[in-house]
Amino acid sequence: MRYENSKIVNVKFGKNVKIIKPCNIYGSKLGDNVFIGPFVEIQKNTKIGNGSRIQSHTFICELVDIGKNCFIGHGVVFVNDKFNKKNGPSKDSNLWEKCLLEDNVSIGSNSTILPIKICSGSVIGAGSVVVKDIKVKGIYAGNPAKLIKKI
Amino acid sequence: MRYENSKIVNVKFGKNVKIIKPCNIYGSKLGDNVFIGPFVEIQKNTKIGNGSRIQSHTFICELVDIGKNCFIGHGVVFVNDKFNKKNGPSKDSNLWEKCLLEDNVSIGSNSTILPIKICSGSVIGAGSVVVKDIKVKGIYAGNPAKLIKKI
Amino acid sequence: MRYENSKIVNVKFGKNVKIIKPCNIYGSKLGDNVFIGPFVEIQKNTKIGNGSRIQSHTFICELVDIGKNCFIGHGVVFVNDKFNKKNGPSKDSNLWEKCLLEDNVSIGSNSTILPIKICSGSVIGAGSVVVKDIKVKGIYAGNPAKLIKKI
Repeated sequence: MRYENSKIVNVKFGKNVKIIKPCNIYGSKLGDNVFIGPFVEIQKNTKIGNGSRIQSHTFICELVDIGKNCFIGHGVVFVNDKFNKKNGPSKDSNLWEKCLLEDNVSIGSNSTILPIKICSGSVIGAGSVVVKDIKVKGIYAGNPAKLIKKI
Repeated sequence: MRYENSKIVNVKFGKNVKIIKPCNIYGSKLGDNVFIGPFVEIQKNTKIGNGSRIQSHTFICELVDIGKNCFIGHGVVFVNDKFNKKNGPSKDSNLWEKCLLEDNVSIGSNSTILPIKICSGSVIGAGSVVVKDIKVKGIYAGNPAKLIKKI
Repeated sequence: MRYENSKIVNVKFGKNVKIIKPCNIYGSKLGDNVFIGPFVEIQKNTKIGNGSRIQSHTFICELVDIGKNCFIGHGVVFVNDKFNKKNGPSKDSNLWEKCLLEDNVSIGSNSTILPIKICSGSVIGAGSVVVKDIKVKGIYAGNPAKLIKKI
C-alpha cells in the first residue's frame, strides 16, 4: 500500500489567498482574495477568479473555470464527465467537458454541477443538481434544477 | 498565501464528548456524550444537545441549534442563508436565519437542511432537501422533502 | 473531551493500493489496484473489489460490498439503515441492511445509495438517490433514481 498526503502543489496564487487545511489542491490558478475552506479538493486545469469563496467539503474537478466574486457553498461537487460517452467514466480526458461559471454566480450548498455554463449573477439553491446551461439570470433549484424566478 | 489548520477552539464541552479528527470546530457548545465523526465543520453560535451524534463529512453552520439525542447522518449540510434577500449570499449576518432541531430528530445522510424548524421525533430520509418547517411528527423525504408517513 | 485521529487500521490490502490521506478506514478489505481519494471514510465489514476507485469525500458504511472495476464518484454516501424499523437509527446492527454493487458499476458524484443491489455495468447519474434494487443494466438518475436508458 502506498499513500500520499493531501497537499497544495503547483498552484499559482493571487494576492491575499486564504486556505484552511487540510486541503488537496494541485495545478490550479487562484485569483486575488480567494478563500478556500477545509476539506476541499481542487484538481489541475482549474481557475478560481478574484474574490471567489470556496466553502468546506467542496470538490472542484479538472476543467472548471470559476469567475470573479462567486460563492461556492459547502459540499458542492462539480462533474466533468457525464458518463454518456462510454456508459461510465472515460479514462480519456479528451472526452471530459468544461464547466464555466461567469462572475457573481452563487451555488448553494450540497449542489451538484454537471459540465455546463452558468451566466453571470445567477443563483443556484441548496441541494440542486444542475444539468443544463443556465442562460437566463435567475434563481434555480431542484433536481434537475429549474428556473424559480428571473432576477 | 496564508493558511490555517483546522482546529477545535472556543468550544464548551459537556462530559464524555468524543471527536474524530481532523475537524474544524469553533465557538460551539457541545452537550454531554456528543459524538463527532471525522471531516466535520461546526461554526460558532451553534449548540449540539446531550447525546446527539454528528457523523462524518457534515457541515453545521452558524445559528443551528440541535436538540438532545438527535442523529445527524453523514454529509449533511445545514444552510443559514436562503440567498433570497440579496439574490445571493448576505455578508450581513443579521440577514441569516436560525435552524432548530428539537429532540430525537434523525437526519438521513447527504441531506440539505435550510434554516427551518423540525419538530421532535421526526425523521428525514437520506438525500432529502428540507425547505419548510416540519410541524407534524413523521417521516419525510425527497427534494423538496415531503411527508411520507406520520409516526 | 477525548479525541482520536483518523487512521487506517485492520485493513486487508491487495497489491498496489493507493490512498490519499487524510482518510479514516478500518476493518475493510481492499482489492488489488484500488484507489482511494482524500477525505474518505470506510467502515468495517466492507469490501472493495480489484480495480475499483473511490473518489474524494465519499463515505462507505458497514455492510457495503463493491465489485471489481467500479467507479465511486466524489461525495457519494452509502446508507445501511433505512430508519424504517425504529422510526430513526437502529443501534442494533442486526437491523442494518447490506448494499451490493456488482462489477463495473459507476456511481456519479454526490449520489446517495440506500442498502440495495445494483446489477453489473449500471450507471448512476450524479446527484441521484438510489432507493430500490437496480436489476436492469442501464443509466439511472434523479431523486429517487429512475431508469433513463437501457444499455
